[in-house]
Formats: sequence, C-alpha cells, structure tokens
Amino acid sequence: MTDNGILIIFSGPSGSGKGTVLSKVLQNRNDVKLSVSMTTREKRSGEIDGVHYYYVTRDYFEKKISDNKMLEYAEYADNLYGTPKDPVDEMLKEGLAVILEIEVQGAEKIRNLYPDAVSIFLAPPSTAILEERLRGRNTEDDETVNHRLVIAREEIRRAVEYDYLVINDTVDNAVDRIETIINAERLKINRNKKILSEVINNV
Amino acid sequence: MTDNGILIIFSGPSGSGKGTVLSKVLQNRNDVKLSVSMTTREKRSGEIDGVHYYYVTRDYFEKKISDNKMLEYAEYADNLYGTPKDPVDEMLKEGLAVILEIEVQGAEKIRNLYPDAVSIFLAPPSTAILEERLRGRNTEDDETVNHRLVIAREEIRRAVEYDYLVINDTVDNAVDRIETIINAERLKINRNKKILSEVINNV
Repeated sequence: MTDNGILIIFSGPSGSGKGTVLSKVLQNRNDVKLSVSMTTREKRSGEIDGVHYYYVTRDYFEKKISDNKMLEYAEYADNLYGTPKDPVDEMLKEGLAVILEIEVQGAEKIRNLYPDAVSIFLAPPSTAILEERLRGRNTEDDETVNHRLVIAREEIRRAVEYDYLVINDTVDNAVDRIETIINAERLKINRNKKILSEVINNV
Repeated sequence: MTDNGILIIFSGPSGSGKGTVLSKVLQNRNDVKLSVSMTTREKRSGEIDGVHYYYVTRDYFEKKISDNKMLEYAEYADNLYGTPKDPVDEMLKEGLAVILEIEVQGAEKIRNLYPDAVSIFLAPPSTAILEERLRGRNTEDDETVNHRLVIAREEIRRAVEYDYLVINDTVDNAVDRIETIINAERLKINRNKKILSEVINNV
C-alpha cells in the first residue's frame, strides 16, 4: 500500500490500559505489529517472555547497548527497558506499522532517530480514574501506587510532545481511534510518493 | 469535541471527482462544512448560487479583495476564484471541520495564514483515467480538455506539498479516506489541549 512502514511511538502512564488496547489493535490488524521490548525487570504473573517483553539480565542488556543494538533504553524503577533496533527496521521495510510501547523519555530519542515516526499518547479520562485502576490492580502496595501516580501526572503533562491524544474511556473507543490514526497516516503524502509518480506517469 | 475546528484544504485536478466526493462527505457528517467560494465565472447548468459558488461580478470580487475580505483568490482561465474570510473563521470557532475546495496556488496562501490547516490532494488513479473522465463530461471541446490535462499534470506534481493523498478509485473509498483523515486530525494533540489539561487537573 505505502512506500514504507510506519513507526508508531505509543506511550501512556501506568494504568492507562496500554496493554489491553494494544492487544486488541494487534488482533484486528495484520498490518500492525508490536515491537517487543527488552527489560531487566522481573516477569509478572501472566506475562510471557518474547510476547510482553524479552526478560534478560542486566549484563545481557548492557552488552546490547554497547553493541549499538538498542534504539532507546531507559532506567525506570531500578530496571532497564529498551527497544532492540534490528527487528524494528526489518518490519518497517516490509511496510508494516510497528508500534513501540515506550516511556516518555524513550519517545524523545526515537523521534530524533525516525523523524517520520508517529506518536500517540494514551491517557485515562481523568487522573482520578487512573488512581482507581491502579488500586484495583492489587499488584502493588499503597506507596508504589502513590509513586506511580506522581510519575503518571508528570508523563501526562508531556503528552503535548506527542502527535495524537487518545483518551481511553472505553477499550473499543480507544482501539478504534488508534486504527483511525494508522489508516490516516497511511494516506500521508510522504508515504505515497511512489503511488503519486505512478499516477503522473500513466499518461 | 476539540478545542477548535479544523481547516481542510482540498484540491485536485479538474475531473478528479472533487464535487461528487465532497457532497457525499457533507451528507455523512454534521461536523463538516464546505466553504462556499466566490467566482466570476459563469454558472454551469445544474449549479446553484450559494451552494456551488457565489457567482459575482468582477467589480464585486475586486471590492472584496481591496477590503481584505478574501482569504485567497486566483485567476484561472480568465476568471477569478476565491475564499471569503469571515464565514470560514466563524465555522472554525464553532468547532467545525471547514473544507476549502481550492486551486493549488490558493492552497499555498492558506497554509501561510493557517499553519494548522490540513491539506488533502484528491487524485485520479491515473492521468489516463482523468482524460477519460474529462472527455466523458462532454461540456468542453477537445482543445479545452487538452489544456485541462496539461494543467492537471502540473497540479498532480504539486501534490507533494499536501499532507495527504487520496486516490479516487471509487467514490465510496475516497469518501471513507477523507472521513478517516478528519477523524484522525480531531485526535491531534494541538486540538486537544483543553481536554488534556482536564485529565491532569481532575486529580
């Protein structure tokens, strides 16, 4: 369809529902793939290695960094998170929309490396609802939740650096909005120069 | 929904099907309005004053220009075409998506006046198909059609100055793509700063 794939930076605070929304988008679309991140944090129950993250040791992660094989990485709550470069570039060459689910600080780095990247910020309808969701999870103690809320507010303030804002009022709405963004981005002129020259040259 | 309306620059060569596509978009959507242009050219059969254009005299048009009440205007095949400013600004304040169907040279002027404007170029699947459509119209002689084709190719080359390319392979596809673009543009961060600050302040 388009000349090249689309790199999509996808961020949102903890508790915004990124995982649920993304898994539905991936179910709906063959042309959208998720870049699997690498992390040194421990696997949570229900998570699968190679699906949610590649769970690696700090030594392994640091070797990837020094080999220049990480697009971005960041330390967050004493753990490293990052994006391996090669699989992303391969998927883009195939014309896929590749979603990077990354932290706000990582997003900035990606934008510099891929100026055509499209960035989407997923936000809860309100920070009050975010708090409810975080407490409802029951996986963290009060102190951790409070800490996450402070970080979440800081992250939401940086949403202005993104191209699009998607409010996660319902999962279906959020999924629909993300698909709409991808469909529209496929129509951007800079992704259709080959098609445009075909239109002109078929005289 | 959004802070402000969206100004949409919509261009495409003669015979690309702009009129048919736009009338369907307008039928489908209450939040999209067409800015009615002003022209000094004669009314074609089937056209309605105030719907397709405001048909005015050259004197009247030139008075509007000197009163600084035209957003853009251009001379084309010995006739003036242009966009009256006030109705556009009023519709934008109401949060509407306002479509300006204008020539390529007018588009450039609008982009300078409204940097947030979104521009869409409607192209035929090929210039061969464009030629068929123009000849099928039977409203112009061969010489006029040939002249239009030369202009059309020049215009299509300038599609690279636009944000989006919509190929009019079928009317329904083209309508769908334009609606997708409008829906995605509604989600742009710069049109949702009020909503974003509500998310943050509802602590």
